[in-house]
This record gives sequence, C-alpha cells and structure tokens, in this order.
Amino acid sequence: MSAEIITVGDELLTGEAVNTNAAYLAKKLQELGIDLCYQTSVGDDGLRLKKVFTQALSRSSIIVITGGLGPTKDDITKEVIAGVLERKMVVHKPTFMKIQNRLNKGRMNVTKSIQKVALCPEGAEILDNPVGTAPGIILTEGEKKIILMPGVPGELKSIVEQQLAPYLMRFREKNYMVKQQILKVWGLPESKVGDLLEDLMGESRNPLVGLRTKTDGIEISIIAKGGSPTSAGRLIERTEQKIKERLGDCVYATGDVSMEKVVGMLLSINKKTIAIAESITGGLISKKITDIPGSSQYFLEAVVSYSNDSKIRNLKVPQEVIKKHGAVSAQVCKAMATEIKSLSSADIGLATTGIAGPSGGTRTKPVGLTFIGLATENGYMVENYRFVGTRLTIRTRAAQAGLDMVRRYLIGVSNR
Amino acid sequence: MSAEIITVGDELLTGEAVNTNAAYLAKKLQELGIDLCYQTSVGDDGLRLKKVFTQALSRSSIIVITGGLGPTKDDITKEVIAGVLERKMVVHKPTFMKIQNRLNKGRMNVTKSIQKVALCPEGAEILDNPVGTAPGIILTEGEKKIILMPGVPGELKSIVEQQLAPYLMRFREKNYMVKQQILKVWGLPESKVGDLLEDLMGESRNPLVGLRTKTDGIEISIIAKGGSPTSAGRLIERTEQKIKERLGDCVYATGDVSMEKVVGMLLSINKKTIAIAESITGGLISKKITDIPGSSQYFLEAVVSYSNDSKIRNLKVPQEVIKKHGAVSAQVCKAMATEIKSLSSADIGLATTGIAGPSGGTRTKPVGLTFIGLATENGYMVENYRFVGTRLTIRTRAAQAGLDMVRRYLIGVSNR
Repeated sequence: MSAEIITVGDELLTGEAVNTNAAYLAKKLQELGIDLCYQTSVGDDGLRLKKVFTQALSRSSIIVITGGLGPTKDDITKEVIAGVLERKMVVHKPTFMKIQNRLNKGRMNVTKSIQKVALCPEGAEILDNPVGTAPGIILTEGEKKIILMPGVPGELKSIVEQQLAPYLMRFREKNYMVKQQILKVWGLPESKVGDLLEDLMGESRNPLVGLRTKTDGIEISIIAKGGSPTSAGRLIERTEQKIKERLGDCVYATGDVSMEKVVGMLLSINKKTIAIAESITGGLISKKITDIPGSSQYFLEAVVSYSNDSKIRNLKVPQEVIKKHGAVSAQVCKAMATEIKSLSSADIGLATTGIAGPSGGTRTKPVGLTFIGLATENGYMVENYRFVGTRLTIRTRAAQAGLDMVRRYLIGVSNR
Repeated sequence: MSAEIITVGDELLTGEAVNTNAAYLAKKLQELGIDLCYQTSVGDDGLRLKKVFTQALSRSSIIVITGGLGPTKDDITKEVIAGVLERKMVVHKPTFMKIQNRLNKGRMNVTKSIQKVALCPEGAEILDNPVGTAPGIILTEGEKKIILMPGVPGELKSIVEQQLAPYLMRFREKNYMVKQQILKVWGLPESKVGDLLEDLMGESRNPLVGLRTKTDGIEISIIAKGGSPTSAGRLIERTEQKIKERLGDCVYATGDVSMEKVVGMLLSINKKTIAIAESITGGLISKKITDIPGSSQYFLEAVVSYSNDSKIRNLKVPQEVIKKHGAVSAQVCKAMATEIKSLSSADIGLATTGIAGPSGGTRTKPVGLTFIGLATENGYMVENYRFVGTRLTIRTRAAQAGLDMVRRYLIGVSNR
C-alpha cells in the first residue's frame, strides 16, 4: 500500500512553524512498513486542499491528513473532504457528549463553533482523542483509507500511538518489513565516501544506501526491506559490514549516536579522565562533553584561553613560544595540550587553536587553519587542519576533529 | 506570482529529518511578499520527482526545489528537471574550476562524482555557493522561474540571503507588503506575557501578534500587512512600542538576535571585558559568547571547573567553603565569580554552579537548582534559580540566565 501525507495549515506556508507532524508521521509509517511516497503542505484554503486531496485519491491508497479539524472558521478539512467524497456531515454523539461534559464542568456553554468539532462525514470510524476534543476520523472509499487527524502535535501523537498505529498494522506490505541502520562517518569527504560505496548505491536497490553531509560528518543510512525482521536484519548486517570494511575507523558510530557520546563511553570503559584547553572552539568541546549525563566521571576541567595572557597564565605556555610561532601554531598547541594534562592530572589533555574567522586570517595563516593537540601517557601529537565554511561550521568541525582524535587514541588503547 | 516549494530527499519521507528547509524558505518568501501555495516532499526517486515537478510547472510561477544537487548517485534533481524541460546538461566551467582549485589545495584528484556537481542544465543562471560546492541554479521557462538549491541548510541559507532573496524581490505582489518584527523576551513566563498582551492578540488582526516559547525565552512575532513598506512599518512600530512599554527590560532583543550577540554588543560599546567560571553550564556560555565574530575583543578566558579540584586549584575557591556549603551553593558561586574576575583582570566575572541532572539531585538540592554569580567593580551578586526540564533545557536556561545577568548589569552601566 502506498501512502501519502497532507498537512494543512497557513503556518506551514508562512514559515512560522516547522512541520514536525510530517516528520513524525513519516517515521511512524516507515516503522509500520508502509511505503510513503509523497508529503504535501497546503494552507487553510478550501480550493487548494480540494485539488491536493483529489490528486492524492488518484495515486495513493492511504491518505493521512493533519490539521484543520478545530472549532474555528479557518478549520476546513472535514468539510472539504466530505465535499469531494460526496458525504453528508453528521453529529458524532459520543464526541458531542464528551465536549458537553467537559464544558459543563467548566460551567461553559456549548457554542456553535464547538459543535462543529463533533461533526464528521457520514460512515466514519472515530478514533477517540484522549488529550483533546477533535477526534481522529477514518473514512473508507472503496479500497482506500482516508485518515483525518488533529494538527496539535500532542493530540496527533496520542491518537497515533494508541489507536492509529495498531489499526494500520494490517496494511503493512505482505512479506514486507523495513529496517533501518545509521552509520556515522568522520574524516572522509562525501565524494570519497560516495566513490568507495558507489556499487552499493542506486535508486531501487535493497538495501537502499543513502549519504547525507552534516556539520558533524557524513551520515550513511541503510534501509532494508525483507519478508521478516530477520531477513531485513540480515540484509542490513551484510551491507553494514561491507561499509565498515571499506571505511574502517572513519565509521565512528553505529546508530544515531553523537561523537561526544562515543568518546564518553570510551573514556568510561577505559577509566580515563580528560581535560581540555580550548582556543578556537571556545568552550564548544567542553559543552559537548558535558551535554552527556554522567560526564563528571571523566571530564575534569577545561580552560578556554582566548587571550594570550590566559594561555601564558593558566596554561603556562611560554611567552617566547607565542612570540616566535604565534598563538595559532603547532608549538603553542602542543604546550596547551601537555600543560592542561599535567596541571589537571588528567590521563588525556586535548587542545585546540586556530582561526575561526570571518576576519583574522592572513596569507600564511588563513581562516580555517586549526591545530589540534593530544597529550597522553605516550607523549603528544599535533594534527593540523584547514576547515572551510562559516565561523559556525569551522568551529563545529574543529570540535568534532578534536573529539575524533581522542576517539582514535582510545580505540588504540582498547585494542591493546 | 504564486510559488511552490519541492523538497527532495528520502530522509524527509522516512522521518529521519525534520523539514527545516521548507520552513526557512516559506518564511523568506513570506518576507519577500511572494505567495506560497504548496509545499511537497518527495524521495530520491526520479519518476516521482518528475511527476511532482510536472504538476508544479502546470500550476505555479516560481518553483523552488531543494536537495539532490550533490555528487552521489542518489542526487538526481538536476537530471530530472533537465529531462522534463528537455535541456542538455553542460559543464559550468567556473564551478568546475572552483572545485578543482579546492581539491588541488588538499592534494586530491577530481573524481567523476565530483565532476557531476559542476554539471547544470543548459541556459542556467548560476548562484555561487560561498560555503560549499554545489551552486544554486535558476532556469527560465517562458514566464516561469525554476530555482534549484542545495539541501545542506547552511549552504541553502547562505545562497538565499546573499543572492536569491535580492533576485526574487522583483516578483513580489504589487500593493502588498508584509513586514515582520521579532521581539525576544527573557524573564517572564508565557502565560504572564500572554495576559499582558491579550488585547493585542487575535486571529484576524493587523498586525498579527503571536507568541512562541523557546528554550532561550519567548519569541513575540508581529506581522503587519500594508499597501506600502511605510504603512506596514508604521503598524509594526506602534505595536512594538506598546509591547516594549508593557514588558520593559525583559525584551532583550528587537529582531531575531541572540542573547549572546546583545551581550557582545553591550560589552563592546562599554569597552568592558569578561571572564567566566562555568560549572553547570560546562562551557556553554563560553561557546555562545565565542560564536560571535570579534568576541576575542571582550572575552578573555573561561575555566570550566567540573571537578572540585579544579574549583580549588584554578579558581582558588577555599576547600572549607566547598566542604561546608557544597559545590552547588551561593558561597561557592560567589567565590568562583570574584576569583575569575581577579585572576583574569577582567571587568566582569560570571560564574555558574548547579545540578543539571538527570541524576545528582537531593531533597534540599534538587535537579535544576542553579546559582549564577556576577562580580564587577561594584562588588558581587548571586541569583538562584530552579530550572525545570531535561538536562539540555536546564543547561540552556542556565546559560541564558547568566548572559541576561550580564546584560542587565551592562544596561545599568550604559544608562549611568
């Protein structure tokens, strides 16, 4: 069965609201093994909704429509759909009673606009709304199912989880089970990953392998369809294995897990502590590490040394080294990493220094130039990078590269 | 001119990604006074994209398509659109040269997949991508404009702000001008703001006043329509004035400006420097301050003292004070603020300590309890808060409250 989502509301076409309902429903349908082909947003406009719905009827078997079921004048969804299907509107008594009871408790009268909420097209199945007034509505038209849902996210979710999802189970493709896996990659450009995985990619393949570039690296999605969870799972596993063989250590996470979470787990497992000296990243690495609950077990401290004075006073970087090589140099980075390690008595010292831009770059030290240093019991190392993009991108990538350096070191430690 | 948006990508139909590009573009078109009628999402599927695009051509004058311009096999947008419009694909030389230059710097070869990024349908106008490789593309078909944009949000925004928005200005509706203003509020609950502004709100009013609660406070949106920029602007101004009178200093920004930007401007204007001692916020305040270009002029340093040892060693907090009152206390917060100020010789010392959760709370010191301290030439003050929500929310609110404390102090300084 192919499905389609129509979301109704002016706020979606003015940019006031981000369409989280569409993402939520898409995810649900995916989990249920129902193939979603289109998603359309349209304003509170009867004529346009009619056009969009008529087209959906011609191409999809399951049509889920959210929004426009409320009491006000601009809520038009039920009336438009009833019009296209040539059905009368009738009062759904249990809904009417529920509204009346609720209003009586608040000593309020049943107004005409509230009565509207209890109206629905003839022949409807009703899905009770446990957290609001407007119920969900299922209409059957031949082989097709038309499902109307309220647009308030909490109400939508509540009805979907408790009633719609179990109802839709029966329409999942026969011999059809969808499983998805995410692999997260750092340290390779998208084009390189694309080349390495080219033979695994392509439109109608099973599993379907897709790439997305994000600020924190590349996300590889593997989606497999199979006759059973096991067979879909096996397809995923085989492809996952191939990808990991080809990309090696550059795959930093299996599943939608952040780099800081991976690093946190590795620090915990290996009982290592960390301290950080941040210049270009300005607190971002510490922020990311302390985003993770329980990070106080392995994160000791950070010094954000934006000024030279702070590098000299807090981190004991020799003034001559800054003078000779500049604050953005491998030498200063090395001093920052080794000093923060020894001052804090941490097992690992991490340091960053660079030029985030947009200004401050020179010919020899351009915007994006970044040094990342790691000091451990085995000594120190400094890597240098040239990140491209906005200040935000450069800083995010620098933080990610720093965390990745810690990750690679800890994998080595784990494997020893 | 009626417009329509098509967003392309499997991730939109599997629920992996929330469609923020659609919301962003919708907002831009609204600001430009261009009427957006439909928004459709479709997967990386050539046949379906072809159908959706063909229909869009039949009903809309401006079609903006995002996603699918990258180097990999599942990037199909350009090829499909060129097919429908019966245009050949040609190499756009400047884009090719740009990619080649960038790769040569990194000592990498131009692969076949990268060449694909430089291909575009014949007769295209090219919008340079300042932060990535795939450029924006404008195609003219009779009276219609077809606009292809990369799907990476940072790249999309960069091209839209610098090039597409000015280009689209000429298509705005005649005698129709929409102006929007944002006011940002910190320090009042939404219900209180709602009560204070009740008479200004309501569905079909002009200007339309709306409230949204976000982690960084409340956002008030004022949207006015008028026959000219001046008349719409006048409507906005009058309402903005009323709101500011009623909410006073709690309005921290006019326009979509972050608290850290406001604080940065106030520090610059007043020629003051700041240093920070962060415990509960774990680097977040420093990260926010250094997000702003030029922050090295006023931000000296931060110490993220997660461990007691770091509070004692780096911040000279007396061990007895920690022992007697605990690390999360007004006394420790005061010591952190005054010490970071004196150690760094900054004009302002800011400190945070608290319990971010999810674990670590007690009956007397529950999760969310936060102390924020400010040390200045006038002495020090400590405020205490009890934030509610997830670890993320608590940390974000603590950072926002800390920055706001600096803001309020600096407004006092400015007004002296």
